[in-house]
Amino acid sequence: MESLISYAEEQPPSSLMTNSSSLKQESNESGSPKCVGGFVLVHAGAGYHSESKAKEYKHVCKRACQRAVDQLRAGALAVEAVTAALVELEDSPFTNAGLGSNLNLSGEIECDASIMDGKSLHFGAVGSISGIKNPVLVANCLLNEAQKGKLSAGRIPPCFLVGPGAHDWAVSHGIPPCPSEKMATRFSLSAYKRNKRKMELAEGTVPGQNRTKKRRQSSENGNGSGCLDTVGAVVVDLEGNVAAAVSSGGLAMKHPGRIGQLFFYPQAAHYGCGCWAENSGNMNPYSTAVSTSGCGEHLIRTMLARECAAAMQSEDAHQALLEAMQNKFISSPFLTSEDRVLGGVIVLRCCRCVEAQPSPNIQGILVEFLWSHTTESMCVGYMSAQDSKAKVTDRDAGGETGEGTAGEAVGDGGREPGGDGAEAGGSQVRLK
Amino acid sequence: MESLISYAEEQPPSSLMTNSSSLKQESNESGSPKCVGGFVLVHAGAGYHSESKAKEYKHVCKRACQRAVDQLRAGALAVEAVTAALVELEDSPFTNAGLGSNLNLSGEIECDASIMDGKSLHFGAVGSISGIKNPVLVANCLLNEAQKGKLSAGRIPPCFLVGPGAHDWAVSHGIPPCPSEKMATRFSLSAYKRNKRKMELAEGTVPGQNRTKKRRQSSENGNGSGCLDTVGAVVVDLEGNVAAAVSSGGLAMKHPGRIGQLFFYPQAAHYGCGCWAENSGNMNPYSTAVSTSGCGEHLIRTMLARECAAAMQSEDAHQALLEAMQNKFISSPFLTSEDRVLGGVIVLRCCRCVEAQPSPNIQGILVEFLWSHTTESMCVGYMSAQDSKAKVTDRDAGGETGEGTAGEAVGDGGREPGGDGAEAGGSQVRLK
Repeated sequence: MESLISYAEEQPPSSLMTNSSSLKQESNESGSPKCVGGFVLVHAGAGYHSESKAKEYKHVCKRACQRAVDQLRAGALAVEAVTAALVELEDSPFTNAGLGSNLNLSGEIECDASIMDGKSLHFGAVGSISGIKNPVLVANCLLNEAQKGKLSAGRIPPCFLVGPGAHDWAVSHGIPPCPSEKMATRFSLSAYKRNKRKMELAEGTVPGQNRTKKRRQSSENGNGSGCLDTVGAVVVDLEGNVAAAVSSGGLAMKHPGRIGQLFFYPQAAHYGCGCWAENSGNMNPYSTAVSTSGCGEHLIRTMLARECAAAMQSEDAHQALLEAMQNKFISSPFLTSEDRVLGGVIVLRCCRCVEAQPSPNIQGILVEFLWSHTTESMCVGYMSAQDSKAKVTDRDAGGETGEGTAGEAVGDGGREPGGDGAEAGGSQVRLK
Repeated sequence: MESLISYAEEQPPSSLMTNSSSLKQESNESGSPKCVGGFVLVHAGAGYHSESKAKEYKHVCKRACQRAVDQLRAGALAVEAVTAALVELEDSPFTNAGLGSNLNLSGEIECDASIMDGKSLHFGAVGSISGIKNPVLVANCLLNEAQKGKLSAGRIPPCFLVGPGAHDWAVSHGIPPCPSEKMATRFSLSAYKRNKRKMELAEGTVPGQNRTKKRRQSSENGNGSGCLDTVGAVVVDLEGNVAAAVSSGGLAMKHPGRIGQLFFYPQAAHYGCGCWAENSGNMNPYSTAVSTSGCGEHLIRTMLARECAAAMQSEDAHQALLEAMQNKFISSPFLTSEDRVLGGVIVLRCCRCVEAQPSPNIQGILVEFLWSHTTESMCVGYMSAQDSKAKVTDRDAGGETGEGTAGEAVGDGGREPGGDGAEAGGSQVRLK
């Protein structure tokens, strides 16, 4: 692969940022688009990843890429390949999706996932679903069912189900239930206990105040950005169709326990917020696919996935993504009351090749892939159908991977192993 | 009031429309913007309203306008006034919102509502909430709570709750529960029995087919557009702030009973789809507020509220709304697989007056209000803080109202009673 990388390190922080060291935005672009047969880009969340977790994230990102590419090589459509990638990401006990998801205050796991097919523009999503190992499979099933037409008496099939009903619908459509106790891991259980203790300490700090006042805290407590590790993927298939998906276990400790069952609504299930995919058309020269991660409320209120997809219709994808992240997210008028704006995106755009191909076995599709985040780190992996293995990077973790250091992997940006990572470490390398 | 009306009757139907007589789009505009102190525009849903219901809808629309204007005259902000209007609309046993909402297949009422404040750009929503008489009050409470800052341990407050947890949260925040049996009405119960029988007949028509196949029906069964009567309102207050809200009981017979509790997710609770409100700013010369009604899946997938709000930044609001409804809804690439595209919007836009005022007691805010729908009818009402009573119209019902015939009320478009309604009955009357 021949793409180059551009970094835009240490972007201007959010105007209301209080901790500049934890707010940075980086972006990566395949500056000289490649002709490839199919391509997958995955993420294991924007947040703060400890070194111990970073290695696991890289491994699972590589496995997820391989799963998607296996599908692509077998001729699967983008929506099937992206589902395969998500299943792998959800099955990791280290990611906050599917197995090993964050527990809410009552110790339960409630997951969210969505998927969008750029070809049909159909969308499927589940919110606050419990007892299903792979929520993305339910979202994908909803998407498929919606394409079959109306239900009896002319009723329109749902694209969106939440709560216990979503679980029941999934099981009735052949998706096996998974006992909740099997979905929690040693890590998620210990995090739950740690978080619960932390919250109880925080709530007990000012005796004599009423409950509402006790619940309010200064922003100095932070957002627990380590918990924002939603996973996602974007794919383009052999035919040039795009698809995107996202899956999340939601924020840890979703609600004070004094109130029973409560469904929060992170962006993962939210149309236009968690993922977006749209094949090229009359109005759009590029096919685009986006998957987001970060603070759900921030991603919802800015409709970040859709905004980034729309921005990708500009000629310079890299510049457009930086501007979208700055103007539509960090400086968004919808988030002026926030002290920190936390999020990340992976983006893929492609169009048909018009020039002659160098090789008959290369499909005529130009692919550009980018990512950007305001959080401390974001683990991403990518792989084309022609690659022998996936590349991964976790910007700040610095852990070793099969390809070399994280920095080298970032710098590689799709080049073959041995490519020069140094230029990637520099900032503002322009490509065109 | 001096505004004029433009009609655009019998707009080009959806490209996939099969029944042209039931797909029309009409639009109404206050062509010469007025300086008013505060203004409310409400709707009782886009759909097909029987004559017997039309009269009730007009009455409740008038009462809702009066409630909002009472608030405005008392100095309330737009978000409070729009909440007051919604409470009145929800309390009517005839609307499909709050009291008297559609029952799902298991005979339960699950409501959705959302509200957006154009000043803070905050949003609050509830989905599939049961046992609360006024879901809009919960949405408004979420909006208010979100503005108070973070919860303990830095957790971000939710803007969005669904299911039983939304109910519990509401009650814990002082909103009284309402027994479910008190929320059903004689009308909603008889509609439930009628619909259930109809569905059972439809599902039993092809013996021997498997269950999935039996559920699928041809589009000739229609969409039950009579059930699309979501309610909503848009308001501008004395200071020029805008707010929008929407509330719905959702589609009748939401799910085949063989699957238990199931939460569908209509647009009413969905960010960017059910309502939108945004004060003017650096990028937006106009403050805009939009509330939608119709088929939830159609409104979600086109993000109709936000699209119409964005369109309102064009100079010619009337033309912009027609184009938005045509290009972003009827001909939307997201709905190409749909045979009917069902929806309606009410729109309000305003900006500060720059010219000298004719009277010192008139605030310097120019207000334009519009509505448009693809359904057979849509009942709307409107009133300024200076009016003695509200005006209402239900395009096709033709029932009498306090102001005269529906046609006259439509034609009036904000003029005092006695204004010429004839020109409104004509098509394509351009105003500028």
